[in-house]
Amino acid sequence: MGDFFQKYLKSCQTFATNMRLRLPLLCIILEVILIILFGTLVEYNVDTDAKLWNANKNQSATRHDYENEFYYRYPSFQDVHVMIFVGFGFLMTFLQRYGFSSVGFNFLIAAFSLQWATLMQGFFHGMHHGKIHVGVTSMINADFCTGSVLISFGAVLGKTSPVQLLVMAIFEVTLFAVNEFILLTILGANDAGGSMTIHTFGAYFGLVVTRVLYRPNLDKSKHRNSSVYHSDLFAMIGTIYLWMFWPSFNSAITNYGDPQHRTAMNTYYSLASCTLATFAFSALVNPEGKLDMVHIQNAALAGGVAVGTAGEMMLTPFGSMIVGFLAGTISVLGYKYLTPVLESKLKIQDTCGIHNLHGMPGVLGAVVGAVTSALASPAVYGNGLQRVFADGEPGEWNAQSRGGFQAISLVVTLGMALIGGLVTGGYKVGKCSECMLPLGKSFDLIYFKFTTVIILCHSNERI
Amino acid sequence: MGDFFQKYLKSCQTFATNMRLRLPLLCIILEVILIILFGTLVEYNVDTDAKLWNANKNQSATRHDYENEFYYRYPSFQDVHVMIFVGFGFLMTFLQRYGFSSVGFNFLIAAFSLQWATLMQGFFHGMHHGKIHVGVTSMINADFCTGSVLISFGAVLGKTSPVQLLVMAIFEVTLFAVNEFILLTILGANDAGGSMTIHTFGAYFGLVVTRVLYRPNLDKSKHRNSSVYHSDLFAMIGTIYLWMFWPSFNSAITNYGDPQHRTAMNTYYSLASCTLATFAFSALVNPEGKLDMVHIQNAALAGGVAVGTAGEMMLTPFGSMIVGFLAGTISVLGYKYLTPVLESKLKIQDTCGIHNLHGMPGVLGAVVGAVTSALASPAVYGNGLQRVFADGEPGEWNAQSRGGFQAISLVVTLGMALIGGLVTGGYKVGKCSECMLPLGKSFDLIYFKFTTVIILCHSNERI
Amino acid sequence: MGDFFQKYLKSCQTFATNMRLRLPLLCIILEVILIILFGTLVEYNVDTDAKLWNANKNQSATRHDYENEFYYRYPSFQDVHVMIFVGFGFLMTFLQRYGFSSVGFNFLIAAFSLQWATLMQGFFHGMHHGKIHVGVTSMINADFCTGSVLISFGAVLGKTSPVQLLVMAIFEVTLFAVNEFILLTILGANDAGGSMTIHTFGAYFGLVVTRVLYRPNLDKSKHRNSSVYHSDLFAMIGTIYLWMFWPSFNSAITNYGDPQHRTAMNTYYSLASCTLATFAFSALVNPEGKLDMVHIQNAALAGGVAVGTAGEMMLTPFGSMIVGFLAGTISVLGYKYLTPVLESKLKIQDTCGIHNLHGMPGVLGAVVGAVTSALASPAVYGNGLQRVFADGEPGEWNAQSRGGFQAISLVVTLGMALIGGLVTGGYKVGKCSECMLPLGKSFDLIYFKFTTVIILCHSNERI
Repeated sequence: MGDFFQKYLKSCQTFATNMRLRLPLLCIILEVILIILFGTLVEYNVDTDAKLWNANKNQSATRHDYENEFYYRYPSFQDVHVMIFVGFGFLMTFLQRYGFSSVGFNFLIAAFSLQWATLMQGFFHGMHHGKIHVGVTSMINADFCTGSVLISFGAVLGKTSPVQLLVMAIFEVTLFAVNEFILLTILGANDAGGSMTIHTFGAYFGLVVTRVLYRPNLDKSKHRNSSVYHSDLFAMIGTIYLWMFWPSFNSAITNYGDPQHRTAMNTYYSLASCTLATFAFSALVNPEGKLDMVHIQNAALAGGVAVGTAGEMMLTPFGSMIVGFLAGTISVLGYKYLTPVLESKLKIQDTCGIHNLHGMPGVLGAVVGAVTSALASPAVYGNGLQRVFADGEPGEWNAQSRGGFQAISLVVTLGMALIGGLVTGGYKVGKCSECMLPLGKSFDLIYFKFTTVIILCHSNERI
Repeated sequence: MGDFFQKYLKSCQTFATNMRLRLPLLCIILEVILIILFGTLVEYNVDTDAKLWNANKNQSATRHDYENEFYYRYPSFQDVHVMIFVGFGFLMTFLQRYGFSSVGFNFLIAAFSLQWATLMQGFFHGMHHGKIHVGVTSMINADFCTGSVLISFGAVLGKTSPVQLLVMAIFEVTLFAVNEFILLTILGANDAGGSMTIHTFGAYFGLVVTRVLYRPNLDKSKHRNSSVYHSDLFAMIGTIYLWMFWPSFNSAITNYGDPQHRTAMNTYYSLASCTLATFAFSALVNPEGKLDMVHIQNAALAGGVAVGTAGEMMLTPFGSMIVGFLAGTISVLGYKYLTPVLESKLKIQDTCGIHNLHGMPGVLGAVVGAVTSALASPAVYGNGLQRVFADGEPGEWNAQSRGGFQAISLVVTLGMALIGGLVTGGYKVGKCSECMLPLGKSFDLIYFKFTTVIILCHSNERI
Repeated sequence: MGDFFQKYLKSCQTFATNMRLRLPLLCIILEVILIILFGTLVEYNVDTDAKLWNANKNQSATRHDYENEFYYRYPSFQDVHVMIFVGFGFLMTFLQRYGFSSVGFNFLIAAFSLQWATLMQGFFHGMHHGKIHVGVTSMINADFCTGSVLISFGAVLGKTSPVQLLVMAIFEVTLFAVNEFILLTILGANDAGGSMTIHTFGAYFGLVVTRVLYRPNLDKSKHRNSSVYHSDLFAMIGTIYLWMFWPSFNSAITNYGDPQHRTAMNTYYSLASCTLATFAFSALVNPEGKLDMVHIQNAALAGGVAVGTAGEMMLTPFGSMIVGFLAGTISVLGYKYLTPVLESKLKIQDTCGIHNLHGMPGVLGAVVGAVTSALASPAVYGNGLQRVFADGEPGEWNAQSRGGFQAISLVVTLGMALIGGLVTGGYKVGKCSECMLPLGKSFDLIYFKFTTVIILCHSNERI
C-alpha cells in the first residue's frame, strides 16, 4: 500500500501545476450541467407562468393578482437572501486573514448551491408529471438549503479551497434534499425554520468534514485567525443582518396568515431574550468581566436557531423568551468550554464555532419543537390546528404521536449528517510520508479522475 | 454631608472589584423579570393567535389571509428594525475609539428596550381585559420606543457603561410610554412618525442626562472622538440605511391605504431636499468650502425627523421639500454654531450632536404638524379626513382646535423629557474630593442596593 | 483664438477663489427651482390622495386598501432604493482614495437626480391635465433614472467635482426622460428592467463624457486607483446588495401578478449562473489562476443587466441562465482585454469599468429582449400575452414587428447616449497652453456665466 500512496503523491506534483485550471473548469462544467438539467426538467409554476396564472384567473372570479404567492413570500425571500449573502458572508469576516475569502467563497458556493438545490429539492419532493415547478417558494427553499452548506463552510473555513467547497456543496445539497424529504414528506414533521433540516444537519455535517480534514499544524497559523478592530465591525454587519431578518427566515415558508405572523413574532422575542443572555454569560465567563466579541457575534443568534421548529406553533412570547435565553446560554458556554475540548480531544477544528451557534441550538430547537407538538391541542389552536400541523384533522389529532415523529426526525437528521459528512469528507487511510498530514479520500478530485481511490496530500490541495 | 460622601466613596472601592458581576447580574435579573411579566401579561392578538384568527375567518366570509396585518406592516417593520440595529448602531461608529462600543451596546440596549417597551406601551395604552395583546404593530411600536432610547444614547456615548445605559433605558422607556399615552390617547394628537414622541423626547431626555453626567476632563480625551477614514465609511452605512428606510419609519403605523402611501412619499421628498441643503450649508460654513463628514452623516437625516408628524397629512411633496430644506439647514447650523456653545456655556456634552439631528428638527416637525393640522379641511381630505385625524368626523371637525392640541403635545413632550432626564440622571449633590468630578445620584446603582441615596464617583463607574 | 483662451485662462484664477461658493450656490439654486416646480406642477395621484382614494373606494365596493399600489410596489421600491444608495455608493469604494467621495457624491447626485427625474419623467410621459401625478411608481422610475446617472458617474469618478457631476445629472436626467419617452411611449418597447433605458444609455453616455474629459496625466496618479484590503470589503457590500436586490429592480414596475413574479425569478437564476461564469473566467484569464477582486465585484452583476428587458417575458429559467452565463463571460473578458484598449487607443478612461458591467451586458440584454419578443406567441403566453406586451391584443399580435421595434429601441438609445454625452461633456476646442490638457466647453460653468463658450482648464476645475 505504501508504494501505492507514493505513486499518487508524486502525481500530486503534476496536479499542482494544473491547479489553476481546476476551479475554472469545475465552475464551467457544473454550470453547463445545471443549464442542461434546468432546460429539460424545470418549468414555471402556476404563479409564474403567463398562461397558467391568467387561465386560472378567468376560471375563478375570486382570484386576484394580490393572491399571487409573490406578495405573500417575496419580502421574506429578500430578507432570507440578505441573510445568506450578507449575513453568512460577513459573519465570517472576523478572521482577519480570511475576510475576503469568506465573503467571496460564500458568494460562489451560494450561487452554485441555490441552483443545485432547486434541482435536488424539486427532484425529491417537487415533481409534477416529470417536471420541477419553480416559484418564490422554491427560491426560498433553495436559499435555505444553501444556508445549510454555508453553515458547514464555517467549520472548514481556512483549510479548504473553493474547489473543495464546491464538491462539498454538491454532496451536501443532495443529502440535504434527501433528509428534508424523509422529515417533511415521510415523517410529516414540522420544521419551517429548519432547526433540524438546516441548522442541525449543516452543523454536524460540517463538523464531521472538518474532523476528516484535521490538520494538526493549523495551530501554528493561529495568528491568522485572530480578529482585528475593523474585521470585528465587518463581522457585526453579518451578525446584525442575521439577527434582524431571522424572523423572516423562520416565517418564510409557513402557511399564510396567523402562522407566518406568529412565527415572525416568536422569533423576534426569542432573539431579544437570547441577546441579553449572551451579554450576561459572555461577561460572566471572562475573568475580568469583559465581553468577548466572538460571543456577541455568534451566540446572540442562537435564539433564532432554537425556535426554528416551534416558532410557528403556539409557543407564546413567554415560551419563546425562555427558549432564547437557554439557547444564548448554552451557546456562550459552548464557545468557552466545549470548543477547546472538541479540538484537543476529538480533533474537531471548528473554525467559526458552528457547533455552538447551529449544532447545540439546533438540537435544542428540535427538542422544543417535539415538546410543543406533543402539547398542542384543538383547545388552543381551534380551527387553526390543521394550518400548523398538516395531519391535524379534527377528531384524528394525536399530539403525542406528532411529538414522537418530531423526535424521530431529529435522530434521522443527526444520522444523515454524520454519515453524509463522513462519506463526503472521506475516510482516513494513512499519513503523508513527507508532511505527516493525514490522507483522506480526496473528495474534491472525484470529479477529476472519476475514481474514488485517488489519494492526495491535503497540503497540496490549496489553490 | 462630607463624611457621608467619604463613607460612600470608600465603599466605591469595594464595588469596583465587584463590577465584573454587575453587567451579567443586571442582564439576567432583567431578563428573568421580563420573562415572568410576559408569562403573566402578554397574549397573542387576533392576527397572531391560531384560534382567534381562524375563528374570525369562518364567521366572516370576506376575511382573507391577505387581510392579516402582517402583510400591511411587516415589510415596514423590517425596515424600521434595520434602522434601529444597523442605522443607529453604525451611525455612531464615526468615533474611532467607540466603534465597537456603539454597535455592541446599541445591540444590547435595543434588545432589552424592545421587550420592556412592549410591556410598558401595552400597560399604558394596550390592555385588553388585563392582558397585553401583541402583533406586528406592537413590534413596530416597541422598536420606535427603542429608537428614542438610542437617540439619548447618542448624547452620552463615551461616558457611560452598559450598566448605566440599561438603567437609563428602564426609566426612559417607561416615561416614553407615559408621554405617548398622554399625547395619543388623552390629547388625541397625530404623531405617526414620532417627531414629538420619539425624536423630541429622546433628544431632550438625553441632553439632560448628559448634562447631569458632565465630565470636564472629557476634553482631554478628545482625540478619542476624532474620526478616521474607515470609521467614516462605517458611519455612512448607518446614515444611508437611516436615510433610505425613513419613509418606512414614518409610514409604519399610519392607517392602511392612502395615508401609508402618502407618508412614505412625503418623507422621500423631504429627505432628498434636506440632503441638498446639507451639502450646501456644510460647504458654506467651512472657510475653505470643504464638506464636513459629520454634517453629511447627520444633518441629511433631519428631513425625515421634521415630517414625522405631518407626513401622513396632505402636506404635498412641495411642502415636504420646504420642510426638508429647513431641517437640513438648521441642523448644519446647529452643528457649526450651537453645539460648541452648548458645551462651553451650558456644559452639555452632546457627543453625537443629537440636538441637531433629533432635537431641533423634532421641534420643527411638531410645529409643522400643528400648522398642517390647523389647515386641514374636509375640502382637501374628503372622505379621507377621519382616516388621518381620528376625531375628523364630518360636521364636527375643528381644525384649529386640532392644531392647538398638537401644539400642547409638543409642550408636554418637552416637559416630560426634561423632568424625566433630570430624575433619571440624578441631581448634582457635590464633588468627588479625589478627582473633582461632580457627584450625582448614581442612577445605575439603584437596582443594586435598592436605595436612591447611594453616591458614587462617576470615574469609578466605568466598566 | 489663442488670445481668447489666454484671457479666459486668467479668469480661471479668479474663479478658483470663488470656487468654495460654487457648490453651495448650485445646490441652493437647484433646490429652490425644484421646490417651485414641484409647487406648481406636482400633485398626489389617486393612490396617495386622501380625497381621491377614499372617493373611489366608496364608488366601487370591490376596492380595498390592499389594492393600493403601495402594497404591490413599495417593498420593491425599498430594494431599488438600497441598490441606488448602498449598492452604487459602496461598489465604487474599491478605489481606496475615492472611498468617501464615491459614497458621498453618490448620495448628493442621487438626492438631486430623483427630484429632477420626477419632473422630467412626469413632463415627458406622465402629465394629467397639466399636472404631474406622483406615487410609488413614479418614485421607482425616478430611482431608475438616478441609477443611470450613477452608472455614468462610474466612468468619470476621480476626475470630476461634485459641481460637474450635478451639471451632468441635469443634462443626463433630461435626455434619459426623452429617450424613455421615445422607447416606451412612441415605439411601445418593453424594458421593465432597463437594459436599454438605464444601463445602455447610462454606460455610453458616461463613456462619451469621460472621453471628452480625457486627462493623459491621470496615469501618474494611478496609485490612487489601487484597491486595498478594507476597501475591497466595502466594495463587496455594494456588490452583494446590488446582486441580491436585482430581482426586485427588474420586477419593480412590471405588471402585477405573474409578470412581477416571473421577472424576479428569471433575474435570480441569471445572476446565479453569471456568478459561476465570473469566477471561472476570472481565474482562467489570470496567469496564476488567481481570482481578480474587480471581476468578482462587477462582472457577477452583469447577469442582472442582461435580463433587464427579457426578464418579464417567458424567458424560462433555462434561458435566463444561458443569458447570465454569457453576460458574466463577456464582462470578465471586457475587463481583461477591452478596457486597456479603450484607454490606450480611444482615450476612454473608464474608471469603474462601466462598459463591462453596464454597456456590453446592456446591449446583450436589448438583443435578448428583441429575440424573445420576436419568439413570443399566444400559444405560450395565453391570456397573459397582453399583460406583458401592451400591444399583444388577440388576433392582432405580430411578434416579428415587436422584435423589430425592440431592436430599433436599442439603436435609438445608443444614438441618444452618444449625442447626449457629447453635448454634455462638450467638444474639444484646443489645448491649455500651460499644462497641455485638452480644453473642453466647460459644461459645469454654464450655470455660472450663462454662456456656452467659457473655456476653463480642466486642471483648475477640481474643487
